[in-house]
Amino acid sequence: MRLAPRPTPSKFVLAVLVPTATWFIIRPLVEPPPPLPALHASLGFSLLAFLWTLYLVPALGQTFVKAGLKGRDLLKVYNDDIPESMGLICASIYILLLILFIPFPFSHFMSLSTSEGLAKQEFPHFQLSVYLSSILSILMATLLGFLDDVFDIRWRHKVPIPIIASIPLLMVYYAESGNTNVVVPLPVRFLFGTLINLGPLYYVYMALLSTFATNSINIIAGINGSEVSQALIIAMSVVLNDLLYLPWSTSYRFRLPLYLLGGEADIDVGGVWSAGMAHGSRQLVERHLLSLYFMLPLVGVCLGFLYHNWYPARAFPGDTLCYVTGMAFAVVGIQAHFSKTLLLFFIPQIFNFVLSCPQLFGLVPCPRHRVPRFDANTNLLHPSKAMFERPPSRLSTVVLRLFAAFGLTELTTHPKSGTILEVTNLTILNFFLLRIGPMSEKRLTQTLIATQISGSLLAFIVRYGLAWLVYDGDRR
Amino acid sequence: MRLAPRPTPSKFVLAVLVPTATWFIIRPLVEPPPPLPALHASLGFSLLAFLWTLYLVPALGQTFVKAGLKGRDLLKVYNDDIPESMGLICASIYILLLILFIPFPFSHFMSLSTSEGLAKQEFPHFQLSVYLSSILSILMATLLGFLDDVFDIRWRHKVPIPIIASIPLLMVYYAESGNTNVVVPLPVRFLFGTLINLGPLYYVYMALLSTFATNSINIIAGINGSEVSQALIIAMSVVLNDLLYLPWSTSYRFRLPLYLLGGEADIDVGGVWSAGMAHGSRQLVERHLLSLYFMLPLVGVCLGFLYHNWYPARAFPGDTLCYVTGMAFAVVGIQAHFSKTLLLFFIPQIFNFVLSCPQLFGLVPCPRHRVPRFDANTNLLHPSKAMFERPPSRLSTVVLRLFAAFGLTELTTHPKSGTILEVTNLTILNFFLLRIGPMSEKRLTQTLIATQISGSLLAFIVRYGLAWLVYDGDRR
Repeated sequence: MRLAPRPTPSKFVLAVLVPTATWFIIRPLVEPPPPLPALHASLGFSLLAFLWTLYLVPALGQTFVKAGLKGRDLLKVYNDDIPESMGLICASIYILLLILFIPFPFSHFMSLSTSEGLAKQEFPHFQLSVYLSSILSILMATLLGFLDDVFDIRWRHKVPIPIIASIPLLMVYYAESGNTNVVVPLPVRFLFGTLINLGPLYYVYMALLSTFATNSINIIAGINGSEVSQALIIAMSVVLNDLLYLPWSTSYRFRLPLYLLGGEADIDVGGVWSAGMAHGSRQLVERHLLSLYFMLPLVGVCLGFLYHNWYPARAFPGDTLCYVTGMAFAVVGIQAHFSKTLLLFFIPQIFNFVLSCPQLFGLVPCPRHRVPRFDANTNLLHPSKAMFERPPSRLSTVVLRLFAAFGLTELTTHPKSGTILEVTNLTILNFFLLRIGPMSEKRLTQTLIATQISGSLLAFIVRYGLAWLVYDGDRR
Repeated sequence: MRLAPRPTPSKFVLAVLVPTATWFIIRPLVEPPPPLPALHASLGFSLLAFLWTLYLVPALGQTFVKAGLKGRDLLKVYNDDIPESMGLICASIYILLLILFIPFPFSHFMSLSTSEGLAKQEFPHFQLSVYLSSILSILMATLLGFLDDVFDIRWRHKVPIPIIASIPLLMVYYAESGNTNVVVPLPVRFLFGTLINLGPLYYVYMALLSTFATNSINIIAGINGSEVSQALIIAMSVVLNDLLYLPWSTSYRFRLPLYLLGGEADIDVGGVWSAGMAHGSRQLVERHLLSLYFMLPLVGVCLGFLYHNWYPARAFPGDTLCYVTGMAFAVVGIQAHFSKTLLLFFIPQIFNFVLSCPQLFGLVPCPRHRVPRFDANTNLLHPSKAMFERPPSRLSTVVLRLFAAFGLTELTTHPKSGTILEVTNLTILNFFLLRIGPMSEKRLTQTLIATQISGSLLAFIVRYGLAWLVYDGDRR
């Protein structure tokens, strides 16, 4: 082995972070309880998720290599075996912590504690079922993702796999008589009314959401850090969105030790936030808390894994990571009822999907790998190309010329007849290389991350700035 | 390949069984609903579990072999690759059907239907959480079992794995403030009182139960059909025990078309059963129904797999099967509160465990495989032996001489000094060969099955014939 595992941080980091995580976890048990006790514990668990992933990934790498779960990095000059399917470790840590977290939001002890603004008197049976069915779906996605890695299932066969993993979600949704109404956008309300009951179609929508969330991340792969950084930024965007709905202002005070600086004893932060976007709706707050319980540890796990998956990668995620993160996003979108907002955080993925359609649906030849081409001399990536064995059909030609006109692809045509001979592969990564020019792999990942962040900013603008154009305040 | 997959039954069987299963599943939706609608559906799903396993195991065998999940049959003359870890298929079918079954016992539609004697008015949130956490534990056991197969985890490391899989069970049990009291047996009641609250110890007991149920089956392995036949008979014993508690007599009528034979229109079966062992306790009936929902499809899956695992085996279960079945038994024992009765069905496993102790705890050398020795000339199995590299300690000698005196093992001693040189491996399989004499592998499996059945008969005698000696009617 020439490529040693990336070194883990010094013991000093552990000595600071482990007690911090422990304090967050036991804080809800100390009197007086904080306003949102389970959220404190969730933060502690998320920190643990980060640390466990950070230390376990390098520790178990060689075990994976020995079991045959290994791969070569195609965009490097070296041939080292790199452990593959390490998303399994992320998934295991994530799920184990989600399970260990159960008693915090769901136990008689906790539910009887008076959390200001959220005093629960009855045991939250309904939420517990929802929570358990969500973990069940995520665990199924893990198992199926790992089977995909072991059995190397063909692309066409694996697209519908997330639908199977979403069955627990759908079944419990049905058993609990979940809401299947959608609010109709203003412009078409004269046709359908304000609310429309989709009935069974709603279940189809939920199943497709999980498929989309999984595969749309999985399809932007091939360069170090691409999958996990997409997941990380989407998860952080969801967290940010959830935070808007928490009852910050009701009586939450940030105690800053300002008196040390000669100022006042404490300062009331958040008072200007009004009651958050939830406007006092306990149901909305609970939904977004549920979403946070799933997203915070996911952020922890993704951060820890990104450290080892960062260029030059010491560990590969495998399909497992995409299945788990994709299912986690689908779960919160469905259970916390903000699937449309969620989809807004997938703008780069939607762009990539639309761009890929000609290759996915057979209009353009689709090679097994569409990753950019690596030039070992310059260490730069160039757009990779797909070659037409036979002249393209008229439909293909029209679509490709249209794509080329918008700068989405570059065509190589026959100098005399003008027939398309080659086309750059239709992925967002090749699109970046085409528009910005050849760049290093690390730079390409950074570009992807920047795009994902810009996409999320746009999403917030659309969601909170423009949504009034198509929706009124009726947001069920 | 010399060894072709065992042929699946003719299409005629399918043509009869598939409509039968479908009818059982849709019967609860037809008016008037049967007395226990979900049980009808469970029977239908169990039949499907049997059929799916029967057809999918041979269909996917080569996929497993190609992925490296294969093994040699050590007790045969041939060297063919046999697909290994096929318990994964059983587990997947089992869990998928358990999930698809959710709406039958747990949905507003079903819970509002008046089932005679069991009219439910409120939505059974509590039972749904219990059911989901059980599936979660079984699914974790599946994933961990499969990881064990892929990574080939060492024996000492894998013993505590079922404890991890039982965490969802324990967490939800805690969240729901599950009962941690045990009824004290009459002879020691003067010391502890009638009820004793074990508190945290009860959780330790539950975790150990799952470890025992898993490993005690896994340890009796190595001959074709041994693991799955143990699981099958234990599952059928639990089913039989559950049936005793159903409200057969309240108004359940078997409509037999006796008028076709000139008899009466229908006959009242079960009227003589009185109200079952539940004596009208709705809680007891619900617990045993829950147990049936888990055990009936397990019987289906085990039967289907036994067909392909029967001598000479075309498919091996791997550790996955033992993890799944063991966890399923622990789940019903814990959730339906009959763990002591459950342990009575493990009499052969307990015997094997006690017998194995000197080897498990290092008093006697323990070779990697303790399977009987195969004589290729006679096709018979003989007891295998462990050899002492150094003279045994005094404790080992005493224990082994005691075991030998009871006919549990056979010692080879030094003709002069009397030092023990060799000892037959301390397993129930070698014990059979020692007491009954060398026999074929098939005969040995049959002997194991006969012993398991006798053990269950003894269990019923102890549970319903002798339990009054140590317990009164107070059976919480």
